[in-house]
Amino acid sequence: MILLDGKKTSADIKEEIALEVGELKRREKKVPHLAAIIVGNDGASLTYVNAKVKACERVGFESTLIQLPEETTEDELLNEINILNVDNDIDGFIVQLPLPKHIDEQKVLLAVDPAKDVDGFHPENVGRMALNLPTFISATPFGILELLERYEVETSGKNVVVIGRSHIVGSPMSILLSQKRKVGNATVTLTHSRTKNLEEITKEADIIVAALGIPEFLKGDMVKDGAVIIDVGITRVADPSKKSGFRLVGDVAFDEVAEKSSFITPVPGGVGPMTIAMLLKNTLIANKRRNS
Amino acid sequence: MILLDGKKTSADIKEEIALEVGELKRREKKVPHLAAIIVGNDGASLTYVNAKVKACERVGFESTLIQLPEETTEDELLNEINILNVDNDIDGFIVQLPLPKHIDEQKVLLAVDPAKDVDGFHPENVGRMALNLPTFISATPFGILELLERYEVETSGKNVVVIGRSHIVGSPMSILLSQKRKVGNATVTLTHSRTKNLEEITKEADIIVAALGIPEFLKGDMVKDGAVIIDVGITRVADPSKKSGFRLVGDVAFDEVAEKSSFITPVPGGVGPMTIAMLLKNTLIANKRRNS
Repeated sequence: MILLDGKKTSADIKEEIALEVGELKRREKKVPHLAAIIVGNDGASLTYVNAKVKACERVGFESTLIQLPEETTEDELLNEINILNVDNDIDGFIVQLPLPKHIDEQKVLLAVDPAKDVDGFHPENVGRMALNLPTFISATPFGILELLERYEVETSGKNVVVIGRSHIVGSPMSILLSQKRKVGNATVTLTHSRTKNLEEITKEADIIVAALGIPEFLKGDMVKDGAVIIDVGITRVADPSKKSGFRLVGDVAFDEVAEKSSFITPVPGGVGPMTIAMLLKNTLIANKRRNS
Repeated sequence: MILLDGKKTSADIKEEIALEVGELKRREKKVPHLAAIIVGNDGASLTYVNAKVKACERVGFESTLIQLPEETTEDELLNEINILNVDNDIDGFIVQLPLPKHIDEQKVLLAVDPAKDVDGFHPENVGRMALNLPTFISATPFGILELLERYEVETSGKNVVVIGRSHIVGSPMSILLSQKRKVGNATVTLTHSRTKNLEEITKEADIIVAALGIPEFLKGDMVKDGAVIIDVGITRVADPSKKSGFRLVGDVAFDEVAEKSSFITPVPGGVGPMTIAMLLKNTLIANKRRNS
């Protein structure tokens, strides 16, 4: 069994990006600039967005954090977005989700210029992804593709079972892995809460992407020997033995599944750490497209 | 075995639309107006586009056909599109494909205002489809959903196998049928040229959508008893016994598959006739959205 080490891989990617940024600087080219808008004071969201800003600094990107108060109106937010859309110095930007309830999330995501939408959430970019056109693939699916590629996991002709049909992970993963692309050409089955006999289906899978958000859902007897396991879940589970009082658990019962698998992502340290690296990669891509 | 009669169903839909148009007229509301652009003199394309215009007339829509010469430049075509985009009288329009080789098809599709893109080919509308947001679903997938709905074919929890991953049919069908929607909630496997052991997979299917474009590819021994069969293929095969010298054949070996199936679309007269009806339906939807 080989661990698909997201922590190490994301560090590798960041290092590669830092080298590219160094090269841009040496050639006196514009350095990638990522902006992030956050509305309100949600603790978890602030932590996420600060981690993104810090990651920018570490690889040599410019970054701008725009913190707006909880009571920001939709129009005010749309106005901020428009300023970033037309600001030539900004290569890409994100609007940290979730937004306060008085703001229409869809309207906001639609306002972002698709060429700067490094989260890949604009319907035009989702459509480009589905059509296998140049786009920004959103961070989690992009990170999974990157992990599979770097560990040279064969996907062509393999049976892939995706568990969970979320717009963020399950659905795009099922689309991407079935496409004619380097990490792709798989026969993909997308399963979800209405699926019958899930166990029969997962047992036939060469690769399983578990993205349903139920801790330790995928058990050892649901997978075949040698399967590749991608665990997207991450849930806090109470654990009095820990100083923090909790531990992080994936959608996979790790120990029993790991001993049957050929490759598996740990939780934490698997898919999670890849997301910020892929956001940086999308920002670098945006910078290159804008300056080519 | 029950035939999924696309000819009859599309006639029903057109009649329903004609009734709605009559109602709009009585209330002195704006009647739907579809425009179509065709570039060049390809015989088949002219036939298709004329059939669409005629169908508009029959249901009481206004229609405009814009015929441009083969040597039209990309800029000239983009200019025509822009005129239609801003013309308030036009509810929706289509650009008949294929385009002459000197014109970039992607660029043209991207120029169409998504709100008037009744073919559903703009990436933003494809993305909206993938995100299960209000959109225009393109005619063939939309027609298949409508056939399944009108014949009350249960899809929830069923195993669906789609054969062929085209952007026009296979890929959107796989996305739509797995979504949380009336005709949806199925467990969908998308298969294609790289799929191994296809026969094993199709034999487990409750519903098969054959959309690979190989005449009579799906044989009787590849389907289980009681399966629902949607045949999207349509190929001319030489047949000296016919006056025309050919006959139309689907992707399904009809006779041997039909005797095992519970529902099946004939070719011709199955999925094909649905497409124009769904284009009209999209135009009516566009009209309602614009005037609501």
